[in-house]
Amino acid sequence: MPIITLTTDFGLKDPYVGAVKGAIYSELPDVNIVDISHYVTPFHIAEAAYIIKNAYYTFPKGTIHIIGVDAEHTPDNKHVAVYMDGHYFVCADNGIMCLLTAKFNADKIVEINIHDRITSNFTVMDAFVQTACHIARGGTLEVIGKPIEKLKNISGMQPAVANNSINGQVIYIDNYGNAVTNITRELFKATGKGREFTLTARSEKHNKIYDHYSGFIDFAKEDYKRDIDGRAIVIFNSSGYIEIATYKSNPITIGSASSLFGLKDNTPINIKFNET
Amino acid sequence: MPIITLTTDFGLKDPYVGAVKGAIYSELPDVNIVDISHYVTPFHIAEAAYIIKNAYYTFPKGTIHIIGVDAEHTPDNKHVAVYMDGHYFVCADNGIMCLLTAKFNADKIVEINIHDRITSNFTVMDAFVQTACHIARGGTLEVIGKPIEKLKNISGMQPAVANNSINGQVIYIDNYGNAVTNITRELFKATGKGREFTLTARSEKHNKIYDHYSGFIDFAKEDYKRDIDGRAIVIFNSSGYIEIATYKSNPITIGSASSLFGLKDNTPINIKFNET
Amino acid sequence: MPIITLTTDFGLKDPYVGAVKGAIYSELPDVNIVDISHYVTPFHIAEAAYIIKNAYYTFPKGTIHIIGVDAEHTPDNKHVAVYMDGHYFVCADNGIMCLLTAKFNADKIVEINIHDRITSNFTVMDAFVQTACHIARGGTLEVIGKPIEKLKNISGMQPAVANNSINGQVIYIDNYGNAVTNITRELFKATGKGREFTLTARSEKHNKIYDHYSGFIDFAKEDYKRDIDGRAIVIFNSSGYIEIATYKSNPITIGSASSLFGLKDNTPINIKFNET
Repeated sequence: MPIITLTTDFGLKDPYVGAVKGAIYSELPDVNIVDISHYVTPFHIAEAAYIIKNAYYTFPKGTIHIIGVDAEHTPDNKHVAVYMDGHYFVCADNGIMCLLTAKFNADKIVEINIHDRITSNFTVMDAFVQTACHIARGGTLEVIGKPIEKLKNISGMQPAVANNSINGQVIYIDNYGNAVTNITRELFKATGKGREFTLTARSEKHNKIYDHYSGFIDFAKEDYKRDIDGRAIVIFNSSGYIEIATYKSNPITIGSASSLFGLKDNTPINIKFNET
Repeated sequence: MPIITLTTDFGLKDPYVGAVKGAIYSELPDVNIVDISHYVTPFHIAEAAYIIKNAYYTFPKGTIHIIGVDAEHTPDNKHVAVYMDGHYFVCADNGIMCLLTAKFNADKIVEINIHDRITSNFTVMDAFVQTACHIARGGTLEVIGKPIEKLKNISGMQPAVANNSINGQVIYIDNYGNAVTNITRELFKATGKGREFTLTARSEKHNKIYDHYSGFIDFAKEDYKRDIDGRAIVIFNSSGYIEIATYKSNPITIGSASSLFGLKDNTPINIKFNET
Repeated sequence: MPIITLTTDFGLKDPYVGAVKGAIYSELPDVNIVDISHYVTPFHIAEAAYIIKNAYYTFPKGTIHIIGVDAEHTPDNKHVAVYMDGHYFVCADNGIMCLLTAKFNADKIVEINIHDRITSNFTVMDAFVQTACHIARGGTLEVIGKPIEKLKNISGMQPAVANNSINGQVIYIDNYGNAVTNITRELFKATGKGREFTLTARSEKHNKIYDHYSGFIDFAKEDYKRDIDGRAIVIFNSSGYIEIATYKSNPITIGSASSLFGLKDNTPINIKFNET
């Protein structure tokens, strides 16, 4: 059974997500629809890109991912279907694919041209659903669009790198209030080459990055449980990004990395490596 | 595989939605359960009516829609199963169907009378689940209820119409902070007959209604991108209702039609047509 | 088709829930994944326990329940798979099962020992998904873990009982702002033996507990609709716990039992029975 995933900024209160699912089941009864997220901040392309990048790859090859963010069809905002890394993506060409295409090359891109058959102004329900169902039925991209070469890029998603430093930024605050940066483990290693460093995030300074949240704990110590909850740490998160976190902190009662250290979307993150 | 949709005011934190799904799968392993919304404002019948109206019709005919809002079974709040427009609705007879029955006549209505077999006080899980599964297995409505003629109506859902004016109200604020009114495109056209008009929503005045969000943009102009984000517009939304919106605005950072213009549930909306 | 349910503190914005589902479908295409809740307060074990206890039992026997709360694998936080009451639970041994095991004995408990095969630090996606899929394919618990005798308990989940009193506490605030206590109907009846009582929750005092929300209404009275919305009541809720509620109240506009009476997590609840 083909899988279609949904990533939108619709929220879960409005009728839109239900309406999209109904439209898909009406086109294609035997399909597995999986929500990735409907809480993308409205029109926040970078956030949508981060979310889809860190979820799509766990799905089986051949999965079709609809991304309904900033998707109104205009002369300036084409609709595309992209085949990349064994997955299909159906979205607007508004820069949302650039975090993904930083790593992989698209194997095929078409500009969707079925809009003359569509009358409503609910883009995701119409053009995206019809495209996704066409692909799910085994149809080829060429039938629903004309091949194009390139996708739009948006700047500011990639950190600036020099010999002794990386200047990145916070790109995502997660459900625990932890601040994810746009600096990957690969970039950190390739630039640092094992040197000591200081990571600065506003007033916070760190010179150790752990591999998991409890990495700083010495479980051999008898009193290791003292003062560990809420401690500030830097880790490589499960997606491979540097993340500034607090250990087991409740964002509402105690506070989180975001609320305690004033980290939010676009906060600059600097890593300075020692000269050797 | 039959489809059962869920629309409730349970929220998504509590165990209730999971418990309802478990109960359905225990009755009927081969069923497709689809969430429409669980974030109806508690006991807000008009909101539930708006949501279900704008999602149900995209599902295949024969779909069964459970509406778990204000559903406690009392002498005053009967449970009903309704067959209308090819779909089944299982809900309390509390006025929730009146937005739907404004457009369609119910083909069959029964008052559910299986409550003597039920002991718990979790209405949706028990009476509604058993009714929905009965229908999904191909059972007839008569077996689980006795036919009745009429459903309750709630006032205030329909605008007041005169020769030269329509007096409606805001009935829904969506995830983007856009304000949906209870004035449909059909009503607007039938009353206005092509005349010029002024739509007033508190201090906002408009005399143009677009067909989609970007309808006001002149894409031929070179500098068309200046000052378009956050602009106030009135459109016929994808559900056919007049909606007061802002173009690509983020409700949290910049503000939305609702927060910027003070529009909320029940805010009066007046349309005055010019005399000819 | 086997059912795997998910209960986590991931929230629904982040990519994590989607990533877990993708990982399950990649292991096992024919499985039915059902969300119970992803809005457990971060690291709140007691809350997770309450939610899973009140949802799991409606699912068919053999269902596998993944609980992704406080699940990082450390020397102090083993991973376990538990077979109990005909259901499988995959979680960390952090006390989360103690509300469940207060009622049922576990038929089998294994400490999961497949972690040498796992490299990432995303616990739920890796160890829990592999364990759940192993069980869903019909595999035995012994293959993926070594049998152990006991699970950790957390204190404070059970009320203190004397001859003439029960001292419990609020353990959950639900979507309607109603306050669920840890005092069950069984405990109330066994201790009270039919005696009159006074239930005290901060400044609120009650001496009647209803069987459902509308239990206090005399529907025979002509003017019964006056002043019933928002009334404070105590009921045995659908899960069998004493709950302090307001009748049909909207937590946002009017207020709820939680906001009006100052009830929150851990607020003491005292029941004093009359001496006879």
